[in-house]
Amino acid sequence: MVDDHHHAEFQPFDDTKADTPRAYAPGTCKIFDMCLEINKPNHYTSAYDINNLVVRRGQEFIMKVTFSRPLTDSDDFQVEFLIGGSESLSLFGSLVVVTFTSRPGGPWSGRILQTQDQLLVLGITPTPNAIVGKFLTYVAVVMSNGLLRTKRDATTDLYLLFNPWCQQDAVFLSDEAARTEYVLNDNGVIYQGSADAVTQRSWVYGQFERGILDACIYILDVSQMPIRDRGDVIKLVRQGSAMINSQDDNGVIVGNWSNDFSLGKAPTSWTGSVSILLQYVNTGVPVCFGQCWVYAGVFNTFLRCLGIPARVITNFNSAHDNGGNLKTDLIFKSDGSQDRRSTRDSIWNFHCWNEAFMVRPDLPPGLSGWQVVDSTPQETSDGFYRCGPASVTAIKEGLLCHPFDLGFVFAEVNSDVVMLKEDRYGSLTPFNVDKTYIGKALYTKAIGNMSPVDITYTYKYPEGSAEDSRTMARAEEYGCERDHTELPQTLLVQLGEDVTVVVVLNNQSNVSKTVSGHLTGAVVFYTGVTANHFTDQDFTVTVAAKRSDMKFIVTVQDGENPVNTMKVIELQKPKLTLTVSGTPRVMQQMYVTVSFINNFNFYLENATLTMEGPGLMNPKSRFYRTIAPQASISWKESFIPRLDGQQRLTAVLDCKNLRQIYYCQTKLSQKKGR
Amino acid sequence: MVDDHHHAEFQPFDDTKADTPRAYAPGTCKIFDMCLEINKPNHYTSAYDINNLVVRRGQEFIMKVTFSRPLTDSDDFQVEFLIGGSESLSLFGSLVVVTFTSRPGGPWSGRILQTQDQLLVLGITPTPNAIVGKFLTYVAVVMSNGLLRTKRDATTDLYLLFNPWCQQDAVFLSDEAARTEYVLNDNGVIYQGSADAVTQRSWVYGQFERGILDACIYILDVSQMPIRDRGDVIKLVRQGSAMINSQDDNGVIVGNWSNDFSLGKAPTSWTGSVSILLQYVNTGVPVCFGQCWVYAGVFNTFLRCLGIPARVITNFNSAHDNGGNLKTDLIFKSDGSQDRRSTRDSIWNFHCWNEAFMVRPDLPPGLSGWQVVDSTPQETSDGFYRCGPASVTAIKEGLLCHPFDLGFVFAEVNSDVVMLKEDRYGSLTPFNVDKTYIGKALYTKAIGNMSPVDITYTYKYPEGSAEDSRTMARAEEYGCERDHTELPQTLLVQLGEDVTVVVVLNNQSNVSKTVSGHLTGAVVFYTGVTANHFTDQDFTVTVAAKRSDMKFIVTVQDGENPVNTMKVIELQKPKLTLTVSGTPRVMQQMYVTVSFINNFNFYLENATLTMEGPGLMNPKSRFYRTIAPQASISWKESFIPRLDGQQRLTAVLDCKNLRQIYYCQTKLSQKKGR
Repeated sequence: MVDDHHHAEFQPFDDTKADTPRAYAPGTCKIFDMCLEINKPNHYTSAYDINNLVVRRGQEFIMKVTFSRPLTDSDDFQVEFLIGGSESLSLFGSLVVVTFTSRPGGPWSGRILQTQDQLLVLGITPTPNAIVGKFLTYVAVVMSNGLLRTKRDATTDLYLLFNPWCQQDAVFLSDEAARTEYVLNDNGVIYQGSADAVTQRSWVYGQFERGILDACIYILDVSQMPIRDRGDVIKLVRQGSAMINSQDDNGVIVGNWSNDFSLGKAPTSWTGSVSILLQYVNTGVPVCFGQCWVYAGVFNTFLRCLGIPARVITNFNSAHDNGGNLKTDLIFKSDGSQDRRSTRDSIWNFHCWNEAFMVRPDLPPGLSGWQVVDSTPQETSDGFYRCGPASVTAIKEGLLCHPFDLGFVFAEVNSDVVMLKEDRYGSLTPFNVDKTYIGKALYTKAIGNMSPVDITYTYKYPEGSAEDSRTMARAEEYGCERDHTELPQTLLVQLGEDVTVVVVLNNQSNVSKTVSGHLTGAVVFYTGVTANHFTDQDFTVTVAAKRSDMKFIVTVQDGENPVNTMKVIELQKPKLTLTVSGTPRVMQQMYVTVSFINNFNFYLENATLTMEGPGLMNPKSRFYRTIAPQASISWKESFIPRLDGQQRLTAVLDCKNLRQIYYCQTKLSQKKGR
Repeated sequence: MVDDHHHAEFQPFDDTKADTPRAYAPGTCKIFDMCLEINKPNHYTSAYDINNLVVRRGQEFIMKVTFSRPLTDSDDFQVEFLIGGSESLSLFGSLVVVTFTSRPGGPWSGRILQTQDQLLVLGITPTPNAIVGKFLTYVAVVMSNGLLRTKRDATTDLYLLFNPWCQQDAVFLSDEAARTEYVLNDNGVIYQGSADAVTQRSWVYGQFERGILDACIYILDVSQMPIRDRGDVIKLVRQGSAMINSQDDNGVIVGNWSNDFSLGKAPTSWTGSVSILLQYVNTGVPVCFGQCWVYAGVFNTFLRCLGIPARVITNFNSAHDNGGNLKTDLIFKSDGSQDRRSTRDSIWNFHCWNEAFMVRPDLPPGLSGWQVVDSTPQETSDGFYRCGPASVTAIKEGLLCHPFDLGFVFAEVNSDVVMLKEDRYGSLTPFNVDKTYIGKALYTKAIGNMSPVDITYTYKYPEGSAEDSRTMARAEEYGCERDHTELPQTLLVQLGEDVTVVVVLNNQSNVSKTVSGHLTGAVVFYTGVTANHFTDQDFTVTVAAKRSDMKFIVTVQDGENPVNTMKVIELQKPKLTLTVSGTPRVMQQMYVTVSFINNFNFYLENATLTMEGPGLMNPKSRFYRTIAPQASISWKESFIPRLDGQQRLTAVLDCKNLRQIYYCQTKLSQKKGR
């Protein structure tokens, strides 16, 4: 898309008269050098595995230009940067002319830093709001009758990124440790499970790996996002949230929440974003399959790769609301069982999205900072599957009157669960409201280490506080319908912490009650969809071979009104072992051995073992037809570290009859050179 | 879409035990009557030419139900209203159960007004936020083992509309004269031309004509708008603005701003919305062709038909901005001519959109009332061709931080025109800024008569006032980039009022200036696109046979800087004559004669004469291969008035070599028939 259009090598002036004398012989530009070795460390782009210059906007970079002879005062030249096809106009910023005299040029400033005979060292500073993407670079010398340009040369193409180090950039982030984590860290952890039993899986973002930056620009090209909008971080992240899912626009990842992944790879089988993005670019078709953490992982790569500070968030008990209000309705039949026909899948055990850090000049003051963006295709936002950017502060304050999708995200963390019973005539009556179940906690990875941080307080004031009431009232003012059902005093039912289910019946009324109880245990997907029902006495057999999240619903009959409660329990997972050997030194061969023992009493079938490490090793896979009970597997692989410092290897074993992820990772440091 | 799904005639109770005795013989419902004669006048829906009951939400209507025997205390029944297919759930309001005892039902209230033996008169009040559309009506009697329903009967289907007469409805409008105009008037006037030479054309909205209400619901069905959202006026008008144009979604009208309408009808040939909407429903494919006033006319019909107060607005000198800022850039070459290659069609002589009246609970207080909605496909809004609802008050105050599309509409009325010159090296420099050209005036039809009202003050504070500065500053705070170019003192160039062009050179500087002038005259489309250039001495011949808007651009060279100004001049139009004869009485035949003399000195070719009058006559057309110079045509047609009171007939003559509209209208009153 970018390459099919470039500048003519000679462009005559429109206003040149026919009798203008032929061009005199000026100092023509022979070669120029983009000075990668000097510019990349200054722009924090050394890690990008690419042969072109990658710099960040709003910050000067240098170029060395060699002319055919030393320039004189009558010589004039300009440097030109060209992006996009048919839109290549100065007006939209897709042609940038940089001048080095008083002659007016485009908005990027240029200065001559040094002159050594024929060689000029130029300093060029793109504006802090410049278009982000890949520019073609030209040096054009002014002749008497036109401009004489250098030939198109792909090695001098310039990649321009957002700049969290630049105070005037909309993505400026003042803290160096935060920038290192949210822009430069190419490994991460995504939290899963439930709020009181948080589990984690590694995710390799790999934003600096070969081909990934081009893949991110390719995604924008596929989306047909206008070139002139690509410097606007608000529009860009919104477009990104639409493109990472395949819906509407032939985007990156196809979602699949069934149990059948035979037409692609299981969401649990990926080790990171790199193989997904490279497959998307190489095939041009959406990649099968993802679920929420896959969307969030790949979107995080996209954002960090383009220079936008980003992180993955996990929301435990995430409401997936269809009605545009603050009520998540669960409908029960008169026998206490859930009415699957009329209840949608409305509570996910956990849901992952991203936050991107930016200024919001389109909103009133105070709403800048972290913004929710979500690429998982849950609901359409104004017609497309996309979500955000939604200011986290606006969510906390209930200021839902601004773009984008604040009401939707607010409901994901603040919905009341309203349990309704359907009578024989088709009418619904609420019988229980749980105001604390949804948005139990929000977690993200800490800066600088692998532990989780509870960031619930950034989304919500404490439950029951005056500020919380104010927020909820404000949300209601802005049209979010809440539940105000007056319920009779009811029994509270609580489930214990362990797989040994303890049911506590707490009679809050003043009279004694005789109740009859009913306990349902079920294996559920993380979306809350029931995969398999079981009764408490035989679940030990059924569970291990299936999904490991279990959900219990207790129904207690209290006169006319059933009383329900829900709890999700996460099971233990076996582990892979990784062992690294060899001298930890950049560009020297090392080895990793990954091993696993099947401690289950059944065969593992059609297992795929995958590992990768950004800066160390591209994703590699091995297939095992069966792994017998008590059998062990071991796989030794060599790799050559590309980057110095701490790096990580991640491995995942995924098989058809043991879908849950089994992974482990190790950390290694290698020194620079020789 | 609605009809493919209806209720079973017997629905057994889920909770019925197998040993339940068989149903006893209750009073079953034999027939019921929707009482059109009583309900329609009370709900201001008498004018709808439809055999079903049409009522407005938030207001009681009555039903008469006859049972097989007088009911006893042990009898129980309910009335059910069903809308939509797969979503028919009480939860989403698509199944509404109305009960008449203490047994809980849905949100609509029911009461028994009168009992006469087997006949019950019921009063039913839909909630003021109920879903709008076509409901299937059932009476269901409670048997011991289930519900026994009346058969599906299309004649009892109920159409439920928005209710501007109901204080709790989001579209409540307190003034009766305003309601009569903006909801009940089925004729209108749309203003065109230029701010200082306003012309007008009639438009027949025809929202009550046979088939139009079903057409409006069909449009929502085609859009796949979820049934549960169809009571939300904000979502509904946004969806409507997307659907009236054919882009994205196979909507109603195909735009065509070229000169070639051979594949359909010319935008200038329509007399109103009725034939467009009926053609759309009957063919299922978008109708060719429309321009802005056609979109606005049809959208107005859609809104008024569903009960939403609406009007058509004309904005003179409407900026059509592509860059998302407050600058409309016109690029000129160094010789003073406009650079068509790099300037987009950015100023429309006039542009029409709609306003819809509603409460905006999603916004802070003060932003309710008229909202801009625009269905002309100018630019995508968040991915689709649609625009609004955008609060007019928010536009006036510069509060652009709210949904939807405020920045876009704000730019249409407030952009600065920035004239830039492009130098030989490809760089642009501004040389003139006109801060008053855009949004010169906004007009709409007056309440109760056919004269125009200037409503500019509802969109803008007076130019140069303190409030205007505050608004512009606020808009800029919310990210609308303005022009702050410091320009040298320049010549002001003004064009005279008449076709005799008077160029006034006003030297504002302190020194005398010698200038050389250049005058361009051109025939333009209303979008500002040049159709034909001419020099002042021969325009009398060229213009009459083409478009009648002329645009002059004067360029005066002042040293280095060209100085430009623009003016659009509207030409005179010939008229049709309509004569009505016969006794003006409902349901009695009358006659209309439309006549025309070709005063031009050339043949009119392939002319179509169309006329219609809502409540009087459906659209009818005649084709004339040629009309010779000085020849006259005359066409007499009979019609039978359906409604009493003042009605109007509108006629349009449109032909291939005289594209500009030629129409006239007459007013007639008929009394109610004997």
